[in-house]
Amino acid sequence: MRKVAVIMGSDSDTEVVKKATSVLKEFDVPYEAHIYSAHRTPKEAADFSKNAEKNGFGVIICAAGMAAHLAGAIAANTTLPVIGIPVSSGGLGGLDALLSTVQMPTGIPVATVAVNGAANAAILSIEILSLEDETLRKKLSDFRASGAEKVIEKDKALSI
Amino acid sequence: MRKVAVIMGSDSDTEVVKKATSVLKEFDVPYEAHIYSAHRTPKEAADFSKNAEKNGFGVIICAAGMAAHLAGAIAANTTLPVIGIPVSSGGLGGLDALLSTVQMPTGIPVATVAVNGAANAAILSIEILSLEDETLRKKLSDFRASGAEKVIEKDKALSI
Amino acid sequence: MRKVAVIMGSDSDTEVVKKATSVLKEFDVPYEAHIYSAHRTPKEAADFSKNAEKNGFGVIICAAGMAAHLAGAIAANTTLPVIGIPVSSGGLGGLDALLSTVQMPTGIPVATVAVNGAANAAILSIEILSLEDETLRKKLSDFRASGAEKVIEKDKALSI
Amino acid sequence: MRKVAVIMGSDSDTEVVKKATSVLKEFDVPYEAHIYSAHRTPKEAADFSKNAEKNGFGVIICAAGMAAHLAGAIAANTTLPVIGIPVSSGGLGGLDALLSTVQMPTGIPVATVAVNGAANAAILSIEILSLEDETLRKKLSDFRASGAEKVIEKDKALSI
Amino acid sequence: MRKVAVIMGSDSDTEVVKKATSVLKEFDVPYEAHIYSAHRTPKEAADFSKNAEKNGFGVIICAAGMAAHLAGAIAANTTLPVIGIPVSSGGLGGLDALLSTVQMPTGIPVATVAVNGAANAAILSIEILSLEDETLRKKLSDFRASGAEKVIEKDKALSI
Amino acid sequence: MRKVAVIMGSDSDTEVVKKATSVLKEFDVPYEAHIYSAHRTPKEAADFSKNAEKNGFGVIICAAGMAAHLAGAIAANTTLPVIGIPVSSGGLGGLDALLSTVQMPTGIPVATVAVNGAANAAILSIEILSLEDETLRKKLSDFRASGAEKVIEKDKALSI
Amino acid sequence: MRKVAVIMGSDSDTEVVKKATSVLKEFDVPYEAHIYSAHRTPKEAADFSKNAEKNGFGVIICAAGMAAHLAGAIAANTTLPVIGIPVSSGGLGGLDALLSTVQMPTGIPVATVAVNGAANAAILSIEILSLEDETLRKKLSDFRASGAEKVIEKDKALSI
Amino acid sequence: MRKVAVIMGSDSDTEVVKKATSVLKEFDVPYEAHIYSAHRTPKEAADFSKNAEKNGFGVIICAAGMAAHLAGAIAANTTLPVIGIPVSSGGLGGLDALLSTVQMPTGIPVATVAVNGAANAAILSIEILSLEDETLRKKLSDFRASGAEKVIEKDKALSI
Repeated sequence: MRKVAVIMGSDSDTEVVKKATSVLKEFDVPYEAHIYSAHRTPKEAADFSKNAEKNGFGVIICAAGMAAHLAGAIAANTTLPVIGIPVSSGGLGGLDALLSTVQMPTGIPVATVAVNGAANAAILSIEILSLEDETLRKKLSDFRASGAEKVIEKDKALSI
Repeated sequence: MRKVAVIMGSDSDTEVVKKATSVLKEFDVPYEAHIYSAHRTPKEAADFSKNAEKNGFGVIICAAGMAAHLAGAIAANTTLPVIGIPVSSGGLGGLDALLSTVQMPTGIPVATVAVNGAANAAILSIEILSLEDETLRKKLSDFRASGAEKVIEKDKALSI
Repeated sequence: MRKVAVIMGSDSDTEVVKKATSVLKEFDVPYEAHIYSAHRTPKEAADFSKNAEKNGFGVIICAAGMAAHLAGAIAANTTLPVIGIPVSSGGLGGLDALLSTVQMPTGIPVATVAVNGAANAAILSIEILSLEDETLRKKLSDFRASGAEKVIEKDKALSI
Repeated sequence: MRKVAVIMGSDSDTEVVKKATSVLKEFDVPYEAHIYSAHRTPKEAADFSKNAEKNGFGVIICAAGMAAHLAGAIAANTTLPVIGIPVSSGGLGGLDALLSTVQMPTGIPVATVAVNGAANAAILSIEILSLEDETLRKKLSDFRASGAEKVIEKDKALSI
Repeated sequence: MRKVAVIMGSDSDTEVVKKATSVLKEFDVPYEAHIYSAHRTPKEAADFSKNAEKNGFGVIICAAGMAAHLAGAIAANTTLPVIGIPVSSGGLGGLDALLSTVQMPTGIPVATVAVNGAANAAILSIEILSLEDETLRKKLSDFRASGAEKVIEKDKALSI
Repeated sequence: MRKVAVIMGSDSDTEVVKKATSVLKEFDVPYEAHIYSAHRTPKEAADFSKNAEKNGFGVIICAAGMAAHLAGAIAANTTLPVIGIPVSSGGLGGLDALLSTVQMPTGIPVATVAVNGAANAAILSIEILSLEDETLRKKLSDFRASGAEKVIEKDKALSI
Repeated sequence: MRKVAVIMGSDSDTEVVKKATSVLKEFDVPYEAHIYSAHRTPKEAADFSKNAEKNGFGVIICAAGMAAHLAGAIAANTTLPVIGIPVSSGGLGGLDALLSTVQMPTGIPVATVAVNGAANAAILSIEILSLEDETLRKKLSDFRASGAEKVIEKDKALSI
Repeated sequence: MRKVAVIMGSDSDTEVVKKATSVLKEFDVPYEAHIYSAHRTPKEAADFSKNAEKNGFGVIICAAGMAAHLAGAIAANTTLPVIGIPVSSGGLGGLDALLSTVQMPTGIPVATVAVNGAANAAILSIEILSLEDETLRKKLSDFRASGAEKVIEKDKALSI
């Protein structure tokens, strides 16, 4: 199975990003986590991206805050699907990171999830990888069913 | 090759959506375009989504404006990757559609592109499908190179 | 008297929703509270909505956060009046939930109240039910008068 | 059948409001349209509201722009359900009118619809009135079915 | 000297409003503080406003949050200058109260100050009253000079 | 009677500002109109402000767009009441000018009216001047009554 | 004198950028204009930036819209001062480009000017270059004086 | 070497501003820190600005919150490059300060950095000063390299 890359722009994003890696672990999807900054280590970021496909990656998840350019910078150097997680920091509630991540120009898309939505970034990467992996898709279906079941149980237990 | 589904919530979204289908045509990626409304034809939308995988679809692109629920409603019924295009309408510049599309709860991601970013939605779907299709990925690389070449030519011709 | 349905998209909305159910209790309006997710349990949500009228409900209150599709998904399957409570979560202050709830397309309205405005959602449901229930409307008038009286007393006691 | 009141804060709102009255006509729901300003004719607005129930009204629809206080001012003087239509004017895209209409304090709800969403305001008023009027609810169901049918036909005719 | 009226829409606004009354005390400007709600006690609010001039008031300060209609409702019933203080509450940072207060329609102005800017509301009322009161204007000039002096002293003491 | 100063930051604001001067003319209130820029002619702006009171002005109205500092810069140099008109320009709908005008720090208030609300700025200045001018206040009351009458007539003539 | 680089992310930015180059021409400041895209030609953009200082550039001006990463990508590869012009496009009024340009992480600043503020970007570059060029600073002072003079003349000619 | 001026509008900005002065100290760049208020001490602010160049300053950094006019007021009186730091305060997350700082009219630019981005303001001032100071530019390059090295080390140590 192709690996998922999970890249964050700063180690301050670690807590958010862990919600992605814990989902990947739960699905036994191989991944590598890295810190590359679009601004502080642009060469490292570009090199990783250029070589990602031949190094066995299938999807690249990028988490960054403020003027969140990481996902765009990675996407500029690969044709692998790139998923962007806007990270909230400061007083603007993540609106800066959201717009910086999602409003990409024609030609270079970034698949953007919700502000701080790292778990969903991982699930989206699994949806992509499971296109050619029936076992993985089965796990996704079970995960969905389990999620539904939890809601149903909470509904039954609700007493307000 | 799996097909791409291109769904719009209203026929008023056609002009935006055509930017997606013209890209898919350019790449010879098979697609079906439909109008399903999360609110006016919820059953048709859900039925399409539930059967999308077995009907040969690999990715579902959804375009909708205002309280843009279409992508989320489709995503709720499939584990295929779902790409959301927020469509701008009215005075809020598409901010309503953007937030309604991207801010999905944990468990059900929507891969959101820019407001009215239909061409990028198509490119993202091709990036996903080309994970297991070297010919298609080669086309993507050529498309990227061609896009870069156009910028380089425009730079050379620039005179201001 | 017809019942009020109070639905929340996640058990994390319980604290907000309790402000609605406590008002309904105060007015002796029968209600049922449920957890249905537009995304995690779409079938349960749709089934509830389709059968709500024949099951004796007159109004459905829906509370959800982020890309708050619950009220819209419920409204898509019933002609009963549906009241939406946008729930604030994360850094956007509920603007995402507000726009996702209120900006419904023509044909399927959601009667939206303030962000986290669960008490008002309950009062609105009572205003609707009291259209044909003079006793209930009398309670509403008393409630209003009592609310006014409290303000008048606080004004008299004010000393700054 | 109780009547619907359709009030606008200024005659500049007429074009938006006509989308509401045309729906009411289509459903043969009796209505009266008025211009009352919360700021320029506060007494007339309050008097209308105080007497609305005994004058045979069941729902009051209010349309206003900018610091849209009309719906709130009407709601302050009646326990009838009040529906607010935020009208877009100026450069803020209706965000001012939306927040001024929906963010009501506890005790006095306004059932807010989308910016310029006058047709939905009318439909919501009909949903409310049809709680005790099976004929009207039947019309609503037909209207919904017809709306769905139109989408389905457009889907069949779609060719892009 | 004419009195200043300081009105708040809810006793929850007291802490903000105290910044206004403490300035008025400092300037020995007579004032009355009241709680009147545009929505819960609309008659009391209107009555106060209609009689404010003949009761000796020269300026009316109104503080309210959310869909902050109080200043507008007061202004609708008097030709005295009305100053609005938007009060921040909930997640929108006071943007709702600001737009609800400042975006008044032509004919009925509200002199709006910053979100939670109660001290400035009091100073503005004093600027207005001092137009015909040289003693008061002299106090204002001294107040300004004292404010400047404090900044200058802090500048001298600054050591970073 | 004291004069009203009407200052704009740029001659591009003339169309908006004319709505203020036409109201002042209608009320026979003496005024002077000027173009002073807080940034391009800071000295002229400050000089005007410092001498405004002794030159017979009672209120200063300032209109400016974008980072609208004019009203604040004028207010910094006088204790006369200063009214700010945020002027809309560019794509932000006047939000930039509104926040730059209204969010003044403690000590230096600006009485802010709606975006492009020049007519209301003039009316507010008249409300202030009429505190000691019964004739002017009578005109204001007549103006209000006339405005109300127009609404009432439009209501009577309404036919939709 | 060091040259100014004026880079735009797309030829669609040309009209905005011309306001910068016309100022540079007026000041006889040598410049080169280029089209480099952070996403479509990342290598060309990075190469230009890495070599900018040794190629005789002193300041780099970057204009881009939407998720405007160009200025940040250039800044990541040089220690020359980089000036960012957020370009408005689409319905968000340039807020996306503004936040993407200005909200840079610690270590890599971008000197951001107003949305579409290309003329100011050029003036800022001249202010920087004139730090060691008295002739240029003299031109700046004359330019300022001329700008002030124009305002003063317009003020004298004003008649409203 | 020319000095950097670091000006804040209020001593409440000290904590933010210290991030700038600590960077300047680290680079051994001479600086002076001051508190000048555009509104409370406009004369002091203007005087400082008018004399800044002849007093040996090369760049002026200004930090202010709310309707942040300080940078603009300073820029109006000098042709030195002025850097603006929007300071977040209150509920709007610094959006008010950002727009008040960055949206300057043509002719008077302010080089704006991120909300609370004081460290970057200092780095930007050093980038400007190092245009004619090879030693300083060498320090900047080392600083950048060191910043990159830290990211690379954190990447190597990452274990999630």
